[in-house]
Amino acid sequence: MARGLNSVNLVGTLTQAPEMRYTANGLAILELNVAGNDHVVGSDGQERELAWYHRVSLFGNQAEMMADQLNAGDPVFIDARLNFRSWETPEGQRRSMLSLNANRVERVTYGTRSDQPTVQDARGQDRLRFALNEARIIGNLTRDAELRYTPSGDAVLGLSVAVNERYRDRSGQDQESTHFVDVDLWRELAEASADLQKGAPVFVTGRLKNDSWTDREGNQRRTTKIEASRIEFLTRGSESGGSGTPAGGGGRSQPAASPNPPAPAPSESRLDIDEEFPPEEDLPF
Amino acid sequence: MARGLNSVNLVGTLTQAPEMRYTANGLAILELNVAGNDHVVGSDGQERELAWYHRVSLFGNQAEMMADQLNAGDPVFIDARLNFRSWETPEGQRRSMLSLNANRVERVTYGTRSDQPTVQDARGQDRLRFALNEARIIGNLTRDAELRYTPSGDAVLGLSVAVNERYRDRSGQDQESTHFVDVDLWRELAEASADLQKGAPVFVTGRLKNDSWTDREGNQRRTTKIEASRIEFLTRGSESGGSGTPAGGGGRSQPAASPNPPAPAPSESRLDIDEEFPPEEDLPF
Repeated sequence: MARGLNSVNLVGTLTQAPEMRYTANGLAILELNVAGNDHVVGSDGQERELAWYHRVSLFGNQAEMMADQLNAGDPVFIDARLNFRSWETPEGQRRSMLSLNANRVERVTYGTRSDQPTVQDARGQDRLRFALNEARIIGNLTRDAELRYTPSGDAVLGLSVAVNERYRDRSGQDQESTHFVDVDLWRELAEASADLQKGAPVFVTGRLKNDSWTDREGNQRRTTKIEASRIEFLTRGSESGGSGTPAGGGGRSQPAASPNPPAPAPSESRLDIDEEFPPEEDLPF
Repeated sequence: MARGLNSVNLVGTLTQAPEMRYTANGLAILELNVAGNDHVVGSDGQERELAWYHRVSLFGNQAEMMADQLNAGDPVFIDARLNFRSWETPEGQRRSMLSLNANRVERVTYGTRSDQPTVQDARGQDRLRFALNEARIIGNLTRDAELRYTPSGDAVLGLSVAVNERYRDRSGQDQESTHFVDVDLWRELAEASADLQKGAPVFVTGRLKNDSWTDREGNQRRTTKIEASRIEFLTRGSESGGSGTPAGGGGRSQPAASPNPPAPAPSESRLDIDEEFPPEEDLPF
């Protein structure tokens, strides 16, 4: 699998005071609710302000340091990573969630947009008007792309991307985890990416958004995904490419523009993607 | 000093075959020349294509792995960091350079912009038309901001930002270095940032560009800088804020929007900024 890239930057307003809690092991977790407006150009060429609300967790010493510094209404800068978790309900159904773990949170001032920097939402919460909302990932497709069209004729492509992450945990052990990230592509981007197949490595950048939908049992469900503003098709998907891998020198040239990269080798993928990823019918369109 | 953030993402075309060289210690360095066009909206509201050419170094095993895979004309994705170096000329003048060290380089395909993806420049080199060129830094101002105006009346503000970096070197030692990055802000951004003072911590995102100018001795000089598309004023500049710092608990609240953050404490700054940074008259306007 491609070595993952997993980065989210947000600038938004805290909609409420942060909440501190502690795990059974005593780890501090500060939960932040952040909101902002993106400025997006629609299919009609018109710019729209689209609201977003994201929940971000900050951990450990940083959580304790920031707890007393942050108040409802404060504008903040957040550098974060996407974090995938999945579990089984008591009824035996698989559920998953994509959350945001902060590397750092900084309080900012209303500097450069000081005239009407926020709008109030229906709950009376301040939301930053000119927010920053940028996600960047590198990963491999968990299934073939499938192009669809909305009733109004807009092309839309839903990708699911497995982002591989290697990191050193608190006890100094090297760990590996995989984050499954849904990506929506629209119009030209969707049509140009329609031939992508399972295993293909991609770089995606775009805005992070939440969708909600009602599942077959009538439950309200939520998912966090990236709406892509750009996608790049990488050409060396099955190589791990880390500087620490004994790759045996260069010269592993591939055909110039392989449209169909091999699926990840079983020995390299810690998880069985098909089993671990929520079933197709569980996903919103 | 604020804990630094130092990240550059590029998607462009290799203008020539990469060059491999080795340090005296045997470390492989692959030098890449990358080019692309940014699409920038000028003061007249018109979009322009602006060319950029950047040189990027890739190190070690990754350099050796990629050396045979990359050819002139290939489009590539690059994840890199800004690297500041300074030295003294034989004539006793201080010189400095901002270069790009790659964390990773990936070959990409002409996927989503397959109709006329490149233009040829005057030297016959291919340059990607819809390039990606995004730099993100967090650091502290090394001097007060000073607003100026071009003859045509456009406000322009030149900031110099010290980006602090802690990293683990190849022998496992924790190291610290500071990268001095010039930032240009234009028009509304410039005027809204005119009160920033020495020491102020900022987050800046924008496009990386090269400027050249002629110095007093008539030498052609080059510099790499960020043209900001966004700036955020951070409010806790003198705190290091790393998760590993024994900060003694929370409660270090500052006034809501301090316009004049304290200068970095001498004990925390490894370098004397005034001495280490190139003198003012050495910098292009």
